[in-house]
Amino acid sequence: MTTGSAYLDHAATTPMSPAALAAFVAEAGRTGNASSLHSAGRAARRSVEEARESLAAALGARPSEVLFTAGGTEADNLAIKGVFWGRRRTDPRRTRILVSAVEHHAVLDPAFWLAGHAGAEITLLPVDGEGRLDLAALRAELAAHADEVALVSVMWANNEVGTVQPVRDVVRLAHQHGIPVHTDAVQAVGQVEVDFAASGVDALTVTGHKLGGPLGVGALLARRDLPLEAVLHGGGQERGVRSGTLDAPAIRAFAVAVADAVDQQPERAVALAALRDALVAGVRRADPEAVLRGPEPRADGGAGGAPARLPGNAHFTFPGTEGDSLLYLLDSAGVQASTGSACQAGVPQPSHVLLAMGVPELDARGALRFTLGATSTRDDVDALLAALGQVVERARAAGLVSGPALAGGGS
Amino acid sequence: MTTGSAYLDHAATTPMSPAALAAFVAEAGRTGNASSLHSAGRAARRSVEEARESLAAALGARPSEVLFTAGGTEADNLAIKGVFWGRRRTDPRRTRILVSAVEHHAVLDPAFWLAGHAGAEITLLPVDGEGRLDLAALRAELAAHADEVALVSVMWANNEVGTVQPVRDVVRLAHQHGIPVHTDAVQAVGQVEVDFAASGVDALTVTGHKLGGPLGVGALLARRDLPLEAVLHGGGQERGVRSGTLDAPAIRAFAVAVADAVDQQPERAVALAALRDALVAGVRRADPEAVLRGPEPRADGGAGGAPARLPGNAHFTFPGTEGDSLLYLLDSAGVQASTGSACQAGVPQPSHVLLAMGVPELDARGALRFTLGATSTRDDVDALLAALGQVVERARAAGLVSGPALAGGGS
Repeated sequence: MTTGSAYLDHAATTPMSPAALAAFVAEAGRTGNASSLHSAGRAARRSVEEARESLAAALGARPSEVLFTAGGTEADNLAIKGVFWGRRRTDPRRTRILVSAVEHHAVLDPAFWLAGHAGAEITLLPVDGEGRLDLAALRAELAAHADEVALVSVMWANNEVGTVQPVRDVVRLAHQHGIPVHTDAVQAVGQVEVDFAASGVDALTVTGHKLGGPLGVGALLARRDLPLEAVLHGGGQERGVRSGTLDAPAIRAFAVAVADAVDQQPERAVALAALRDALVAGVRRADPEAVLRGPEPRADGGAGGAPARLPGNAHFTFPGTEGDSLLYLLDSAGVQASTGSACQAGVPQPSHVLLAMGVPELDARGALRFTLGATSTRDDVDALLAALGQVVERARAAGLVSGPALAGGGS
Repeated sequence: MTTGSAYLDHAATTPMSPAALAAFVAEAGRTGNASSLHSAGRAARRSVEEARESLAAALGARPSEVLFTAGGTEADNLAIKGVFWGRRRTDPRRTRILVSAVEHHAVLDPAFWLAGHAGAEITLLPVDGEGRLDLAALRAELAAHADEVALVSVMWANNEVGTVQPVRDVVRLAHQHGIPVHTDAVQAVGQVEVDFAASGVDALTVTGHKLGGPLGVGALLARRDLPLEAVLHGGGQERGVRSGTLDAPAIRAFAVAVADAVDQQPERAVALAALRDALVAGVRRADPEAVLRGPEPRADGGAGGAPARLPGNAHFTFPGTEGDSLLYLLDSAGVQASTGSACQAGVPQPSHVLLAMGVPELDARGALRFTLGATSTRDDVDALLAALGQVVERARAAGLVSGPALAGGGS
């Protein structure tokens, strides 16, 4: 087994690019609060506004539609809570939130918090076996409850199984009823084409550290006519919707990373898809029992249409294994992967994404996600494939450990 | 006039220290989500936990009491909203929030938001002419409403006029009724001695960019038994109270800056107070009509007791002038100061802090704040004093411009 380190967890976080780090350091080298009126403050503000323009241009938005946040989680919270409160203010009946059952917890948990604290009602929209939203279910829900719906939130692409969602169809259906749509595009930007205006969505989440920018910075793109209340109150920055001193160095670095990621996306998608296809084929050879979860990769790089799956994502379940065992055995072999969302790591429950896709609970426990990014190489894939056979064999020999998830009365 | 730049706005933001920037760059140079279970993730987590221990030690807290946030505003929002909801959950009668009338908007605005959205009642506690909390008013309010109070929030030191508040007395009074106390110590850490445990407060806000750390990172120190609900929901980081991928580079740099700031605080306070005293004396010479706002600086550096005023703060009103005019004229002379809080810069209203202190509205409009930090020198003060006489003369000649604040029906 290799002793080097093969990092196959770019969906959890991907390295900060040298260009982004250089931008951070340059901006951090000077002083000035972007809200201050003196020359140092105005210089910091110019830096932020240039970053806003660059980021907007890269993502098909207007500068005035960019609200900087401390990352994807905050942007999702702002979208869900901010639109809920904003809509309810003008129409108290609008208490229903429609979200796909496979959203990240940064979308699900704010929605359920509103259910517990502010009278929201949540509808979890079902997905098919590949994790793709059931549009008929959305249509039916809108037909039944359109007058009560505050917003719809469906992610651009899933963080665990890489399924690209039919966001434009969601927008078309929701807008027929005048209902705004939010999409969490944290995993999508830099991997597939993301254009805010062309997509028609009313709000879109993007974050830095998934695409070569720093941690701790992100943005919500939001149409100016979207009713949106603040989640963080204070100094009134970001047109009163997001208070807090503007983090000029991180914002600057974020904008550089977004511009590069979007610029390089077409070529990168082709390269990542080729690596991913080699990885998928290799895993299937190493363990014929392994089951790819999410859509089958298709040769959809150059045809113009959106791919069914993120090019950098491969996700498998390995029957008769525990994902955590696979993870630790691979880690010992120098290969770093994930059982699913890093944010849920260590939580002894099968993924809500896999369960929503109809994967049986026992199968869902043997999940492993491999994700590729800008720095991924064939060597990373080879290191995985060299180690995988033996790792799965050992994990399968250890078998399934009954854990809290089963103690609760599983399948 | 000088053409160099004299930065006298350290309370708005102060330069990131070379040590903090080096820590940021070192941590940003490696990859790993601190929630990931593989070795890269665990290394990032170790880095965060070491930073947590260092920060806790510097501030007299336990590591488990440190909740990292994206800055002071978020920490204040978490304290006010999180404790309000946490307390109300166990006792629905606890809807009242007592805050001093001179709090930063990051405390005031969440409180008033709760009043508008969650049935909170806000009591603004009065201050005296120097900006110090009226303890008798607090005592009376507690006597009248103790059973309804969710929390008390009084800042450690004021960001505009530098008044150090009697936080221990606040704690003593509030704890007699079993009511938790939050304090925003954003301006205090590194300027005066701040010890979380010794102060007795239940929650304390600190932020990076006011003490040599990066922007976009801060912490709420919170006792483990404090009822606290999350404001940002999602992956469940920070014991479920603050979701969002841990920003390891910024956290690491923040901890370095806090350790240095606290370590150097005793000597720095003496040096800053001496510079500040020279600044105050010089301003009074340059404009005998200038009125120092906040407590008179006292020779209280070495006596062991807390000083009445932050050593790095000087704040004046210049009768017959507009603060904005003074600010821009000084800026043209290479001297960067503030009319008050950077977060309220450009807001055409007199400071709520000065008004709460009983300063007449017309006088409050001529306010200018000078704040010193680790990189301040005698040259900075001299540059101000060289320019100030002429600047005040010109501003006074221009006189008061009637603005929106007066149009609304001022004094």
